[in-house]
Amino acid sequence: MAVLIFSGGLDSTTLLYYMAKVEKVERIYALTFDYGQRHAREIDHARRIVEFARDEMDVKHKVVDLSSIKDLIAMGALTGDEDVPKAHYADKSQRATIVPNRNMIMLSVAVGYAVKVGAKAVYYSAHRGDYENYPDCRKEFVKAMDTAVYLANIFNPVEIRAPFVDIDKAGIVEIGLKLGVPYHLTWSCYEGRERPCLSCGACIERTEAFLLNGVKDPALSDEEWKKAVEIYKRVCGRR
Amino acid sequence: MAVLIFSGGLDSTTLLYYMAKVEKVERIYALTFDYGQRHAREIDHARRIVEFARDEMDVKHKVVDLSSIKDLIAMGALTGDEDVPKAHYADKSQRATIVPNRNMIMLSVAVGYAVKVGAKAVYYSAHRGDYENYPDCRKEFVKAMDTAVYLANIFNPVEIRAPFVDIDKAGIVEIGLKLGVPYHLTWSCYEGRERPCLSCGACIERTEAFLLNGVKDPALSDEEWKKAVEIYKRVCGRR
Repeated sequence: MAVLIFSGGLDSTTLLYYMAKVEKVERIYALTFDYGQRHAREIDHARRIVEFARDEMDVKHKVVDLSSIKDLIAMGALTGDEDVPKAHYADKSQRATIVPNRNMIMLSVAVGYAVKVGAKAVYYSAHRGDYENYPDCRKEFVKAMDTAVYLANIFNPVEIRAPFVDIDKAGIVEIGLKLGVPYHLTWSCYEGRERPCLSCGACIERTEAFLLNGVKDPALSDEEWKKAVEIYKRVCGRR
Repeated sequence: MAVLIFSGGLDSTTLLYYMAKVEKVERIYALTFDYGQRHAREIDHARRIVEFARDEMDVKHKVVDLSSIKDLIAMGALTGDEDVPKAHYADKSQRATIVPNRNMIMLSVAVGYAVKVGAKAVYYSAHRGDYENYPDCRKEFVKAMDTAVYLANIFNPVEIRAPFVDIDKAGIVEIGLKLGVPYHLTWSCYEGRERPCLSCGACIERTEAFLLNGVKDPALSDEEWKKAVEIYKRVCGRR
């Protein structure tokens, strides 16, 4: 049994399938956090993905309402009033999308839940693409958090696991394509519109990940995919 | 500027005064967490203490509504359905009062708030009396948490400080009496009744702390104090 921090995006959906099919976790408690994010649409996607995945695994799903802390920590583009920066995910401008201490807050709540349900690990989908701009996705943070969590709950030890921490998004998609991850149901865009904007950092990194695997993003129409590739080439052409 | 996790109890109220008068923190952001605890009465006390303290220091106060996570982590006597154990605070039965990962959850949110307001430290009132039963009050946890917090927020470093971690409750009261802490306004009892029950672990430890300083608990009437001392002697007579 293990708890998963599950956003309904590409990374955590791949991790859900990785936990069930590679690590053979018997029961997965998926937690989706509503922290007043601009892209709250991802919560609906999370629900649909869990419905879909239930045919293949034992997964429980809860949406955790942390919207009350929105005002407390609101800053930057995802929870504050700034515009979402239009650039590659690895660009420094993406630091505007930092929600202060977000991963530690979500991990802390998930660990409390793990103690309650008797799960021995909390998984989250930190990955190498996050490394530059999100220090709470780095390996040294994962290790320090694992130690702090162990010491805080020494009567009910819980591990922090981030199996994708050394893998980039293209590598995650490569794993997910083999595992049959329903990428058509996942949501990555930071904007909260009807369809992905294709030009925010999250969209561009997603386009890159599918491009590098030589497949079309199954969440997009043919026309959207063509446009996404054009935007990617314009923004990241000579990277 | 620093953030304080402030329950309105004896320890965190003493820490508020210690921060202002000993450490000379210029502005204190006090956060009181409502996590659906049985003794929600402490929140009213927290408000009254801040009102009182404003004459002597620059303190901002916010109540953080985390009651939405109550169902997620509810277990034990403080947030679940178990009875509050009647024994000394250091007795193993007090483990029923553990709220899983509570301090890490509160610290994580407080750190996010510190980053937002530009504070460089988060204080909390872990102390030696908590050592046995609450691993998230131990020095090794404070150090591990400080490291994890530093690594998670490397662009906006925040420290975790627990200056009372080696001091017991009697030592805290000794400090507080010198600093003029308004103990008559503090609330410790785990039960949510009109007046302190005098016999839960928190009440008994409080009685002990004032007894060892040779003063009456100023939150109690003469009659209540007499009763509290009797209960203390009966439960802890030969300790």
